[in-house]
Amino acid sequence: MITKSLPSIFTIGNLFLGIVSIILVFNGNAPLAAVMVIIAMLLDGVDGRVARALNVQSEFGKELDSLSDVISFGVAPAFIIYVVAFQELAPAAGWIVTALFPICGALRLARFNVISGTPGYFIGLPIPAAGGVLCTMALFQENIHNIALLLATIVLSLLMVSNVKYPNFKKVGIPKAAIWVVPIIVIIAIVIALNASPDTLSKLIFVPLLIYALYGLKKNVDTLFRRRRKQQSEDVDAVEQQL
Amino acid sequence: MITKSLPSIFTIGNLFLGIVSIILVFNGNAPLAAVMVIIAMLLDGVDGRVARALNVQSEFGKELDSLSDVISFGVAPAFIIYVVAFQELAPAAGWIVTALFPICGALRLARFNVISGTPGYFIGLPIPAAGGVLCTMALFQENIHNIALLLATIVLSLLMVSNVKYPNFKKVGIPKAAIWVVPIIVIIAIVIALNASPDTLSKLIFVPLLIYALYGLKKNVDTLFRRRRKQQSEDVDAVEQQL
Repeated sequence: MITKSLPSIFTIGNLFLGIVSIILVFNGNAPLAAVMVIIAMLLDGVDGRVARALNVQSEFGKELDSLSDVISFGVAPAFIIYVVAFQELAPAAGWIVTALFPICGALRLARFNVISGTPGYFIGLPIPAAGGVLCTMALFQENIHNIALLLATIVLSLLMVSNVKYPNFKKVGIPKAAIWVVPIIVIIAIVIALNASPDTLSKLIFVPLLIYALYGLKKNVDTLFRRRRKQQSEDVDAVEQQL
Repeated sequence: MITKSLPSIFTIGNLFLGIVSIILVFNGNAPLAAVMVIIAMLLDGVDGRVARALNVQSEFGKELDSLSDVISFGVAPAFIIYVVAFQELAPAAGWIVTALFPICGALRLARFNVISGTPGYFIGLPIPAAGGVLCTMALFQENIHNIALLLATIVLSLLMVSNVKYPNFKKVGIPKAAIWVVPIIVIIAIVIALNASPDTLSKLIFVPLLIYALYGLKKNVDTLFRRRRKQQSEDVDAVEQQL
């Protein structure tokens, strides 16, 4: 019974941290709110792996996972950036962009649950990565102009519903014998996370997450250019043949 | 194309209002935030019916609906009551009960999506009704003690994951010929909702929603008593036979 419920306990932990993040940012602690989202990412990375390792995957678990993700990586990061940066904007712009992020996240999750993707790849930026970038980026609010943050939020939202391919690390599983190490690693990570300065920690984590988000974008732009060059050389060939 | 997307547009409208509700309560307007949840309930009641009437039901639409519901009727109402009533409580109590509500809501939605229920009935209080009761109840904060609100939030959360049967009005469909009347009704309802005093409006809507939530509970208690009486009379019969 506990074995069967273990993955769902991690998923519920993820959702719980999403709500705590919303409460923390309401109480004026955006850096700690961002840390909660990051710990939620960790739990989200664990639940599916634990389920596969214990062979207790279920449709219920998958549904619960999506519902937790849309809160912790959709609503919470959007609310963090709203409070930190978009409050002062005109309500129309601030509200619409704040809502756009979880809307695109929900569209991404709904699509992910119904289509069978390419093995080893995600189609569109996964919502945990997008939410991670958004909430850590919010902490640079003093260094980045609000309009740039607004545009970045729009780009992140659109990347989620795009067809850009992202590498999928889900196949990096946990050996069954090592399954009981997972809770210990999670606890150690949480202890470290809570002892470091939340602001520094979140800002550090921003870097790899941003690289991941940009990686897919760059690869897609490369493909686009390659296709165009190929098209151009084909056009040149066709013209030469005609001559 | 538009016909196919129409139900999803209502669903996205529901999610959008959920986010607007969170922003409004953050900006100190709990009554209008509650009105947003109520309008979202209206949109939620419409999307499935429109999909059925136009025969464009889809797995994607169902997933998107759950993701919107957990935000508009799980997170938004919980955040409203947190801001209005639970802020002053000890963080442990306030945070846990605030998170309990969307957690139970997500469990309810995940269960609903994977099990086939009894026709004509919902098993457990549906999350839109629970969220509607919670956010309108929050407006009576001056009249109800915070501890009572805390207990009521716990009861509403548990009713969602309970096996209490609730009547399902989903079968009350819209005739296909009348489908284009729906957006007009929605717009009229929104105009009325926005013109009435948000506080009065939400408090009025609290009453039928509470009756619905209590109805299932009462019916369940009745069944429990009937079963007990039956058991007792059977016990008496058995004793009499033995004598």
